[in-house]
Order: sequence, then structure tokens, then C-alpha cells
Amino acid sequence: MPALDKFTEYIDTHAESFIKRLSEAVAIKSISSDARRREDVIAMGNWLDGELKKLDVETKLVDLGTQVMQGQTLQLPPAILGRLGSDPKKKTVLIYGHYDVQPALLSDGWNSDPFTLTVDEATGRLYGRGSTDDKGPILGWLNVIEAHRSLKLDLPVNLRFCFEGMEENGSEGLDELIQSEVAKGQDGWFNGVDCVCISDNYWLNTRQPALTYGLRGITYFSINITGPGQDLHSGAFGRTVHEPMTDLVKLMSKLVDHDGKILIPGVDEMVPPPDEEELKLYTAIDYSIADIEHAAGGKIAISSNKEAVLMGRMRYPSLSIHGIEGAFSEVGAKTVIPAKVGGKFSIRLVPPQTPENVNPLVISYLEAEFAKLNSKNKLQVEYIHGGKPWVTNPKHWNFEAAKKAIQTVFNVTPDYTREGGSIPVTLTFAESLGVNVLLLPMGRADDGAHSTNEKLDRSNFIEGSKLLGLYLHEVAAI
Amino acid sequence: MPALDKFTEYIDTHAESFIKRLSEAVAIKSISSDARRREDVIAMGNWLDGELKKLDVETKLVDLGTQVMQGQTLQLPPAILGRLGSDPKKKTVLIYGHYDVQPALLSDGWNSDPFTLTVDEATGRLYGRGSTDDKGPILGWLNVIEAHRSLKLDLPVNLRFCFEGMEENGSEGLDELIQSEVAKGQDGWFNGVDCVCISDNYWLNTRQPALTYGLRGITYFSINITGPGQDLHSGAFGRTVHEPMTDLVKLMSKLVDHDGKILIPGVDEMVPPPDEEELKLYTAIDYSIADIEHAAGGKIAISSNKEAVLMGRMRYPSLSIHGIEGAFSEVGAKTVIPAKVGGKFSIRLVPPQTPENVNPLVISYLEAEFAKLNSKNKLQVEYIHGGKPWVTNPKHWNFEAAKKAIQTVFNVTPDYTREGGSIPVTLTFAESLGVNVLLLPMGRADDGAHSTNEKLDRSNFIEGSKLLGLYLHEVAAI
Repeated sequence: MPALDKFTEYIDTHAESFIKRLSEAVAIKSISSDARRREDVIAMGNWLDGELKKLDVETKLVDLGTQVMQGQTLQLPPAILGRLGSDPKKKTVLIYGHYDVQPALLSDGWNSDPFTLTVDEATGRLYGRGSTDDKGPILGWLNVIEAHRSLKLDLPVNLRFCFEGMEENGSEGLDELIQSEVAKGQDGWFNGVDCVCISDNYWLNTRQPALTYGLRGITYFSINITGPGQDLHSGAFGRTVHEPMTDLVKLMSKLVDHDGKILIPGVDEMVPPPDEEELKLYTAIDYSIADIEHAAGGKIAISSNKEAVLMGRMRYPSLSIHGIEGAFSEVGAKTVIPAKVGGKFSIRLVPPQTPENVNPLVISYLEAEFAKLNSKNKLQVEYIHGGKPWVTNPKHWNFEAAKKAIQTVFNVTPDYTREGGSIPVTLTFAESLGVNVLLLPMGRADDGAHSTNEKLDRSNFIEGSKLLGLYLHEVAAI
Repeated sequence: MPALDKFTEYIDTHAESFIKRLSEAVAIKSISSDARRREDVIAMGNWLDGELKKLDVETKLVDLGTQVMQGQTLQLPPAILGRLGSDPKKKTVLIYGHYDVQPALLSDGWNSDPFTLTVDEATGRLYGRGSTDDKGPILGWLNVIEAHRSLKLDLPVNLRFCFEGMEENGSEGLDELIQSEVAKGQDGWFNGVDCVCISDNYWLNTRQPALTYGLRGITYFSINITGPGQDLHSGAFGRTVHEPMTDLVKLMSKLVDHDGKILIPGVDEMVPPPDEEELKLYTAIDYSIADIEHAAGGKIAISSNKEAVLMGRMRYPSLSIHGIEGAFSEVGAKTVIPAKVGGKFSIRLVPPQTPENVNPLVISYLEAEFAKLNSKNKLQVEYIHGGKPWVTNPKHWNFEAAKKAIQTVFNVTPDYTREGGSIPVTLTFAESLGVNVLLLPMGRADDGAHSTNEKLDRSNFIEGSKLLGLYLHEVAAI
């Protein structure tokens, strides 16, 4: 049996132990945006470091310092740098992933505890926070290394790792670490890296593997409005004071239209329209309105035109309103006038947009609109975090290697996509290392990353692990 | 020493034990609008029944049946009917109070655990959920009875009690109970009642006791918008689907202006403007813009005109937006598109407004505004609960008795106020018993009922207990 067949057979026969390892990872509540869970994020970093060491990966936990968050000074979770192999005759592939996750509460509407990996035998789905974003893909790489070690197969490339625990909260400290390692040259952990591979996004549909050559950036804000010294009774104070919620919903209503048009002057206008050739790219993609509506779970597509929906995700900015901190949010009927409210929204950015050129438009617009309200309350537009968008060349050999691996594992040609989400570190790697960065998704469009009932299909985890391994062999063969 | 001096002395010398009893009551989390706390509400009813029995009050716990709330069938907390004295030569006073409270979480911004009565020795304030709304006033009556019993003083009137545990959630079942007791005539618990006294509101300021002869009604809604099958990632889905939050903030922005004007056509217009004589009433009240801003804790009065602010509270409707259920409400920066959101707001009603004549205006307006959005999401306007407004004659002997008691205890003449809040049972008593109903507030304007750091001043609790006792003696003397 050829070596690569042994490899894929090993992945198949060890699937249950791989799923068990994933369930250990999911059980650690590594929510980076919640100060109360910071110790869990650090615990997750230590767990991952231990797993890497078991596979003889040389690692270093990098102390990224502290941050002030929610009024507390918090230790940042460590970045994990890793090294496996230093053969000058091999290419060197740098792998990135993040071990932190989005918040999740059973009461948000999960069908099972978000931090207990729950296997649905009928559908083969593995439910749990972080299953697809991004613990599953990280563990995919561990599966590849374990298989090679156990089979005594030589890894075809040198590997470098960079895993972080703050991706869901602005990747605090990571850019500085990467730039500092690059600056060290031959003494840095990223010395000799030929290409980067990141598995932290999704197929465009539920059928077809994809390679991704673009990402939207993001800029995240809270519109903070204060006035009363404490929450007030709406009977005693209704129609006697300026209410922060009244002001906030008026401002939030001026951000975006139901058809997705961003109402902040100058933001949509920064993006040039597509030319004929670009339009053809979207027509070629295996995608339908039914795909978006299946993934969204409702007949709510913003257009009946497939290309318009694809461009809405890939090449236009978007603005979403996430919620309000400080207002009444529980079940029931509380008759409160909230004293201090923060309306959270974010804009997904595309070239040439950056937080630097978009934020001033956002802030001046909101301040001007607030002034029109003639309210005695106070407005503070708080910028929470952001990152630039990224687009690369999908014809690079890094992408060609991944395409061949997909053809081997899945027997199809991948969709070439630009992704609506944001992974700011992609741009940092591309700019500071000057090498090609490949986004190689493991999960499907309907995985529900960031939402309730996040899942990773068993087949995506297992076939995806094979894909990651074969991709390394194709990189070596090019 | 005359009997009444002994009574007031007893109240003074037993203040600490009265505060201890209040702390026991505050410790029971009797939140009626939260299904998870329903057992605590029932426990609170049982505690109160036990305290009444200790004072030889004859009681009956009335089973009000069940309700469906938050998807569950829940037992309603019992109404407590009580009787003390049946002397045909005495007047009979019916006392109403509620033993349930509003929701409260330390994380809402409380300085101390909301369910631990916390005494600030420097200011004499007693902090805790329910301290002023409405456990303190209920216990005031117990203090009066205890003093009379201990001093072997004859109560000057017959007392009847009606205490409920659902006031903060629509007084479910209470109207039917009252009407059924009234229909029983001589066999009912309210037979022979000459007047009603309710202590469940507040002075207009922090200096001057008040008597209240009017209340606003209320109608409470949730604007429910659904679309996606589950929460979505704003990167993957932003600008590809109609987002419920986008629709919701647009609808909520069309409810009320920053100056308090209700934008739902026909609602404000139902209320006739004041004539010259009515305007003089507001001019006479001991009140200033500084009072409202002190109570609100911020310089946010809706007008610099005292009469306009008073009328905004007393004789005009108001609309407040309370918050959103289902959206992101935690600290941090979650990039979610919430799948199902419910925007909560309520309108305080004044004559001739009722839920019956206002609700159709609300529903048809929101449906029409939603239709303009051309959204594929679904709208459901959910009416949660409501009650009619009430106004009575402040020259009645019931008010005269309370006025004299205030003059004795506080050496001032009370403000005559209409209250912005809603106690729907007031109207039920007035209409079904056909007797005068007096609102005799115990707490101050800045007590923070329904808000964070709710408190009752020690002096209001103690002097207020004296006032309740002397009021009964004045009723007997008229």
C-alpha cells in the first residue's frame, strides 16, 4: 500500500479518537471576549501546548502582556509558537489557528450544552462551540502529525505553528509578535517560511470544497449613550427625561437599509463596482439562492439574484447590528428606562476600506446624527476593534497544491471564493512575511460559526484532516 | 402618655426589628415575570401569610390557577385575603399591596446584592429589591398591627387585606378574584368596606409627603421579528440576508421622539389639552426641574418648564423602550446576526386611553411601518399586558383623613399628585366596590423602584409606619 493510502487509512481508522480529542478541546470555555472566562482561555492554550508536545512539536508559549477590558486588567492568553522539522531541502509551511471561541449560553437557543461536544449519529454532525471555529481545524493538523508519526512516515515539509487565543476579540498582541519574530530574521520562529496555510473559514455551500483568496476586514463599534444616574421607572419618569434608548434606536436605525445599503455617507461609495470580467467569476461559482437560504435557515435572501448575493458577501462591505448592552434583555416585561446603553454594530470591510479610513466617517456621522436629536444625553462612539481586508493571487503554487489535494480527496475542483468574514492576521502574515497565504476551509457554509448550535460535520473533520495532510505532500511535490 | 403617643413611641423603639423583618422579605426573590423564580414568589406569599397569622389576622390563600408563560404552564402565586376586626360600629378599610418584585441582577449595576437588604448607616438608606416597591409598605401595615397588639391598643377600624404576587406582571387573576368576592356580597371578604388604601407609589420629591388621586394605565408590547433559522455569523451572512435587528431598530425608532411625543398616529391626540384651571394645579406643586434631575441622577429633564415636566408625568401618555430580548446583550464584541429578536416597549396611558382603544392603533401602525420596509422577515406584535388609567376625587373624607395624619406626623400639608406609574388594581377596586381609593405613598421620588439600587429611606419606613397607623385613627374620627 502506498504511503499516502496508509495515511488516509490511518485517519479513517482513528476517527473516534480524533473526535474524542475534539470533545476535550470543546469542553474548555475559552471565550476571549468575556473577562470572566479569561482563565479558561489560558487553560485552553496550555492544553493545546501539551497536545503539541506529545507529538514532539517544539513549542514556546509567548506572554503577550496584559489588556484592560471591562474595567479589569487581564493577562492575555499566550500565543503558541511551534516548530517541527528543519530540513533545508524541504519547503516550510506556517500554520495558523486560534484556540479561543465566541460566547455561548445554552439559553441562547442551543439544543445541547455548547461546551459538550454532542454527536448526532443520524446526521454525523458534531455540535459544540468551537467545533468548526476553530478548534476542529487546529486538531486536524494534530491528526496529520499523529498519523505520520504513528506510521513512521516522513513529513514532506517543515512545519511552523502560530496559534493564538484572542482571535474572537481583536487578536490583541498578535501583530506585534509576528512582526517581532519576522524582524529577528534567522533567529525568529518564522525563518524560512515559504507559504502560510490558515484553516479558519467555510465552504461556500454544503457540497463543494473551496479555496479562499480574499477576506473582508472589520471595524466594530459600540454607540454608548448615557444620561440618568441609574435605571429609572418608566411610570415615574416616562415623558419627563430624555431616555438613552430613544436616542440609541434612532441612531441605530440610520446605519443600514434592509437591502444592505450602508447609510453612513462615503462608506459604500469607497468600493468601485465590478467590471464585466469580475461579474463572470460570481456566475461561475456553484451557488444558488437556495444555498444561502438553507444555510440561513429562512427564505430571507437579500436578493433573488445569485450574483448580487455572492457580491454582497464577497466584494461589498456589510453592516450588522448585534445588540444592546445595558438594556432589558431578559424574558418578561420589565418597565425600566435603562440608564446606560451600548448599541453594538460592525462593518465588514473590503478593499480599499480600512478601519483607518472608515472609522472617521462612522464617528462623524453618528455625532452629527446625534446632534440632530437635540438630546441632553451624552454620546460616546466607542471603537472596539478592527482589521483590514485582504485579497491575494489564487493562481499561486500554494493554491495549486491545495487544489490538487482537493481533487484527490473529494474528486472535484474547488470553488474559488472571497470570504465575508474577517481574519485580520491573514493580512499581517502576507505583509510581514511577503509570502502567499492560503485559506483552506474545513467546515461547511451551514456550520453556524458564532451562532447557536455550531457544528462540524464528521466527514468534514475526517476528510478535512486527510486534505490537510495531502496538501502538505502536494506543496512538497511542486 | 396618650395612646397615640405610645403608638408612635413603639414604632420608634422597634425600628430595628422592623428593618430585620424587611430584610427577611427582601431576601426572597419573588420576581413574578421570570418563570425560573415562580417558586420564590409562592414562597414569599407563604412567608407573608405566616407573618399575618402571627398577628392574629385571619387569612385565606386564594389559588388563582395557572398561566402559560415563556412556554411553560406555571402555578400563579396565591392572593392573600385577610380580615382583622368585624365591629359594625367601626369603619372598614381595605388595604392592598403586592409581594412580588421586578427582576434584579447584581450585574445590572447594583452596588450590593439586590436580595440582601443593605443598610447605609451614613445616609439611613435601606437598599434592596422590593424595599420600597412594595415590601416596605406592606410591612408598614404589619408594624402598625404589631404595635397596637403589643400595646393592647384597640384598632380604630376593621381591616381587610388583599395582597397579590403578580403586580409586576399584569396582576394575573386578581381582577376576577376581586369581582368574585364583591359578587358574594355579605359572604365576600370585602363586605362592608368603606374605603381602600394602597401604599405603592412615591412622593413627588424627596421632601414633601404626597396624596395621589390619579394613575396612568399601561400597555406593554414586544415587537417580535424572526427570519433566520438560527443566529448567523455576520461575516458569512452580512449583506446576504434580511437581518431582523435591522428591521427592529427601524420600527423602534418610529415609536417616540426625544421630546416625548408619541409617533403612533392618534395616541397623543386622544388626550385633550389642559385648561387654565388645571394648569394652575401644576404650578402649585412643590417641584422644580432640580427635583426631577436629582431623582433621575442627570441633567436630562425633557423641558426647562416645571409644569411641562409635571404634565409629562401626570396627565400625558409616555412611551419608553425597555430593551431587546434575543440580541447580543453581554459585554464584549460578538459578531452575531441574531435570528429572533423581541423589542420591548410600553405606553403609559391617561384618560380616555385604554389598552382597548390604544392597542389597535399600535398594532396597525407597526404593521404598516413594517410593510414599508419590504423585509422578508416576519413581524408579530405581541401584546404582553395592560391596564386602564384611573383618576378620583381628592376632596373625599378618605383623603382628608390621610391629609390630617400627614400634618400630625410630618407637620406639612401634602402635595396632591397624579402618578406616572400604573397600579391597575386601583381601578378595579374603585369600579367594583364603588368606594373611594386613596394612594398613600411611603417612599420618595428617588427610591429607584424598578431600577438598580432600589432603596427605602429608614425615616420613610419608620415615619411612614406611623403615618399608616394615624391615618386609620383619622378615618375612625371622621
